Amino acid sequence: MKKALVLAAALLASAPMLASAQFAKNEDAIRYRQSALTVMSRHFSLIASTVRGERPFNAAEVQANADVVAMMSHLPWIGFVAGAETKATKPEIWKDPAKFKEAADKLQTETAKLQAAAKTGELAKIRTSFGAVGQSCKACHDNFRNQP
Amino acid sequence: MKKALVLAAALLASAPMLASAQFAKNEDAIRYRQSALTVMSRHFSLIASTVRGERPFNAAEVQANADVVAMMSHLPWIGFVAGAETKATKPEIWKDPAKFKEAADKLQTETAKLQAAAKTGELAKIRTSFGAVGQSCKACHDNFRNQP
Repeated sequence: MKKALVLAAALLASAPMLASAQFAKNEDAIRYRQSALTVMSRHFSLIASTVRGERPFNAAEVQANADVVAMMSHLPWIGFVAGAETKATKPEIWKDPAKFKEAADKLQTETAKLQAAAKTGELAKIRTSFGAVGQSCKACHDNFRNQP
Repeated sequence: MKKALVLAAALLASAPMLASAQFAKNEDAIRYRQSALTVMSRHFSLIASTVRGERPFNAAEVQANADVVAMMSHLPWIGFVAGAETKATKPEIWKDPAKFKEAADKLQTETAKLQAAAKTGELAKIRTSFGAVGQSCKACHDNFRNQP
């Protein structure tokens, strides 16, 4: 949580240097954000398997996965620079940046809660927070991502 | 550092469930490890720019980037499953797994030191640790990665 705040503060601090200073080419921005989302998705899926009982519950493993998910939830957004559209991106990302940021903020809030729940080592709490993260993933995908 | 240890312990704990239990397809393993390496590389490059004086020194930003680098240093290795070769992978990854693991361990040790240096907020310390991380990147690439 503290680490997430430090990260958020640092990213905010670097926000004025977005776009060109951040990425040499749009394809670098695309690769970066897709990579952060791939890592997040992977570790979230591992928690999903645990929550669904398909994977034995290992509290330390869930905590490590939740830590990765929480950290990754701060990263992809800087990669959505103007001009870096793909088949997956809806125009709303750039047309309504406030709403897009709200979705990112929501994800960060929920992944921090999942991280806190994971630290308790209680599967019931993890399951609840997991569900809230999943909803924030889905809401953002519904509004801003074309389905493959 | 503590977080890195928790993560390492958790990954160790899940080690017996490698390969098929970890990734449905080899291409998933490849995409995952490449993504973790892309995220690590990106944040390491941002520190590089600071160390080289091309980017203003912002201690909180360097710390956040070092946190990402340290966390990512634990992730890619599980994606090097048997059969998941690419043009970039040398056969030595699978022929000499002990040496490959040693290279990964070295990276983790050095990125933890970089993380600790970043916490001091002292650019000279960051520069020294940055160099050591860079050397461990290079050593691993020299031994295990085909140059593009």
